[in-house]
This record gives sequence, structure tokens and C-alpha cells, in this order.
Amino acid sequence: MRFTSEQHLDDRVLERGFTLGGIPGILWTPASAPAPLILLGHPPLGLRTMYPRLVARARQCAAEGFATATLELPGSGERPRWPAAEQARADLRRAVEAGSPVGDEIVDALVLPLVDRAVPEAQAALDALLALPDIGGPVGYSGGVISIGIRLAVVEPRIGAAGLFAGSFVPRSMFEEARRVTVPLHVLLQWDDEGNDRQAALDLFDAFGSREKTLLANTGGHAGVPQSAGEDAARFFARHLRWPPPSRPGAGSRGWITTPGARGGRR
Amino acid sequence: MRFTSEQHLDDRVLERGFTLGGIPGILWTPASAPAPLILLGHPPLGLRTMYPRLVARARQCAAEGFATATLELPGSGERPRWPAAEQARADLRRAVEAGSPVGDEIVDALVLPLVDRAVPEAQAALDALLALPDIGGPVGYSGGVISIGIRLAVVEPRIGAAGLFAGSFVPRSMFEEARRVTVPLHVLLQWDDEGNDRQAALDLFDAFGSREKTLLANTGGHAGVPQSAGEDAARFFARHLRWPPPSRPGAGSRGWITTPGARGGRR
Repeated sequence: MRFTSEQHLDDRVLERGFTLGGIPGILWTPASAPAPLILLGHPPLGLRTMYPRLVARARQCAAEGFATATLELPGSGERPRWPAAEQARADLRRAVEAGSPVGDEIVDALVLPLVDRAVPEAQAALDALLALPDIGGPVGYSGGVISIGIRLAVVEPRIGAAGLFAGSFVPRSMFEEARRVTVPLHVLLQWDDEGNDRQAALDLFDAFGSREKTLLANTGGHAGVPQSAGEDAARFFARHLRWPPPSRPGAGSRGWITTPGARGGRR
Repeated sequence: MRFTSEQHLDDRVLERGFTLGGIPGILWTPASAPAPLILLGHPPLGLRTMYPRLVARARQCAAEGFATATLELPGSGERPRWPAAEQARADLRRAVEAGSPVGDEIVDALVLPLVDRAVPEAQAALDALLALPDIGGPVGYSGGVISIGIRLAVVEPRIGAAGLFAGSFVPRSMFEEARRVTVPLHVLLQWDDEGNDRQAALDLFDAFGSREKTLLANTGGHAGVPQSAGEDAARFFARHLRWPPPSRPGAGSRGWITTPGARGGRR
């Protein structure tokens, strides 16, 4: 991992660009480092395009005491495309423009190779990020392509909680993987999401094996997630990614560690 | 309205028992009075039985700067029963014990007369409570029999926001009333609620006419609502029941008025 840029966004958040095996990424750390880490997922539109929304989420997480990091997805931004993904994207565009249903084979071709490539990269990034002195404790995964979050939650034991956005196509095989997810989940659903199958999203929520899972559905389309939903997600992580664990001496003495009962402002 | 008892729960919450036209009720006011009011609904099990859960909710609301009040429901506690309701309750018990579906006519007989009686009583209580110097501003309705909340939100213009618990039988005619609800809604659903039809609850959420509505579904049975859900509801009311309105001079100067962006702790 090599840092390529560094800037203070304000006196509370340090933003650093990095590359890891040729993959660009961004790390945001709060003043209260060492801090637990949340990996920020995003749709495959390129880091540059997604930057404004990512930095807003990074600031929200930093306010709750979390470091955040994100990686360019395979086939996005400056990273090389692969023919099968380009073909799947073209097939998807045609189906959507024709108003015909998007077939399973298109969804599989679009999502599964992306998951297969992105998840090991996220794990390699975790190896590098958790070795930094700024980062410590359990890891969260938040948002982006929900199938990447599902696979990562299944195969990566360092993920302690996941906030998922039920707003993208989900291959049928991911429902089986979803049953094997056991970490606490916070699932966001936009009730009127134009391109999303609401019933499939509800079925997926039902399929997750986690004992603790919350579905937060808001009226509005794909891009209409209210600000309060971001705050709810940050509080979800604050409840579940406590570090050091409460049983260790000294827990509760840091500013960003609070007990659930003490959260939520003036009380 | 006549006060019948008074005790300080701590230095922040004053609890007063009252009667209004022979109906017993309880009013909780925070130290920061005058405060906006939330009417606390509850299942028809009697105020005495419900007291521990009600007082916990009242404390949570007081911490967010809200006064709360609750009334004994018609046919509950010491209040006279009526034969049709007793019959409906017996029919319901028989259906549940036999494992047979609960027919529409049982649900209608159980819920509609209760709604018809409880809603005017809640409105009369609002008249009396809003005349008190401790209470001011818009009113919220929270929890309890969801059909009472729906009717009240439709017919009572002083209700500015409602937090509803999708955990009880809903007559089919209430779906039509739900379409006429326009205030911001926060709907709680226990995903594994034994006695509740999950699909009906999702259909009801979909039916509500409100532009701003949130569904918060958590794993667990009817009685397993997590503490964080209560905190989420309190924050929902804090976002929507601002008083005095933000446009009036002096808004923001009281401790319990905050802008959405300023909520959620350390930032």
C-alpha cells in the first residue's frame, strides 16, 4: 500500500489517496485514531464520479469515530474492463430500454464476476489497512453493490457488521449465500426505487441468517435516501462495532464509545 | 380534566394522573415545559398492566423534550365492557386456539367499535391537554392499536406526525383510511411477530398516503422490539414535531429543538 495524496478536510478528518497492487483507493481517518474501520461500498461508476457521495458518508462516519476506506471496483474508473462485463452491461441497457424484464443470465453475468473479483481485493485492502497504526478493531461494510457485501460478510471473519443498500440486481445464488450471513445487518430499502424489485428485496432481507437484522425502508426513489437514513446507519455501526470490546478495561473512556442507552443526544 | 396524583420520577419528569369525563389517564411532562405532546397508544390490556412499558416510553420521549399522555381505552382496565367486544374477544380466542384464520368479521367487531369510541376520547383529551400551560405545539401519536392511530391521523388536524406499530389486526376498511393519511409516518414492524400477518403489514405501509414514511422492521417477535427502535422513534418525532416552527424567531434557542443535521451526537 502506497499513499499518493494527503489532505485535511477539516481539523477532524484526514483524507489520503492510496494504491494497493495498482488499485486506487481512499482512506479517511478521524482525529480520534486509532479508530475502527468501515469499508465504503459504491456502485460501479468509478471513484471519481462517486467521490462527492463517498466523502459525505466518510464525514458522517468520522463524526461517529470511524475510519472509512474505499477501493476502485474491478472494471470501473481507470481500471481495465473485461469483455463479458461489457457485454452484460450492454444486454442490461437493451433490456431496460425495451422495458423487458432483466433475465437471470444478465444479472449473473453482470454481478457474479464483479463479486468474485472485488471481494478478494477488499480482503487484501483489509490486510493492509488493519496494519496501519490509525486503524484498529472490528470492521464494518457499508453500502454499494449488495452482493459484494453479502459475499464479504460470509467469507471474511473480520467483518463485524454490515449496512447494505437493497438497490441493485441480486443473482439468485446470492440468496443462498445470504442465509449464511450471521453478522448484525442494517438493510436500507428505497420503497419506490424505480429499477429495483421491492418484493425481491424483502425476500432477500428475510433470507439473511443474521439474528439481528433491521430493514429501514423510506419512501422515495433510488437516489432519494433521506439524510436521517445515513445517521441511522452510522448509529447502527456505533452500536455494533465497539472497540475495544466493552469487557476490556478502559472501554467507554474514549469519546466515540458510548453505551446504547447513552446514545441519541440529550438524556 | 382533574389531576388525581402527582409525583416526580426524577428531576426531569413529572408524572400526573388525571381523569377526564370519568376516563383515567396519565400525563408526563419534562423539565423543559412548555413541550410538544405525544399521545402514547397501547394495546387494550389496561393502563395498570401497561404502566411499566408506558413509563419507559414516557422517559425516552421526555429525554427528547416531549410531554406524553395516555388514556385508558374503552372497555379496558376499570372501564365498562360492552357485550359485542366481549363476544369478538371470545371469537378471536377460539379462532387462535383452533389455529384457524381470524375472519374479517371478527377483526371488524374487535377493532372498529374500539376505534369509533377511542378516537373522540383522544380528541377530547387533546382539547384539555393543549389548554395546559405545560403543553404546546404540534402533537404526535405513538404506538398502540394501529387502527386508532390511522383514524386519528385522518380526522385530527392537530396530529403532526405518527409512529405506528404494525402489530395488531387491521380491518380491511382501515386500508382505505390509510390512503388518506398524509402526516409523516414512522412504522415499526416486528419481522417475526407470531400473531401478525407480515404481508398485510407491508401492504398497509404501502397504502399510507404520506409522502414521508419510514418502515423500520426488526427481527424478533411481538414483544422483542429492540431499545434502539424506541430511540429511532423518539428521533423521528424530534425531526417532525418542531415547535415553535423553525421559521419563527427564537426557534433553535431551546435545548430540545435541533436541526436534523445537528442530531446524532458528536459532530
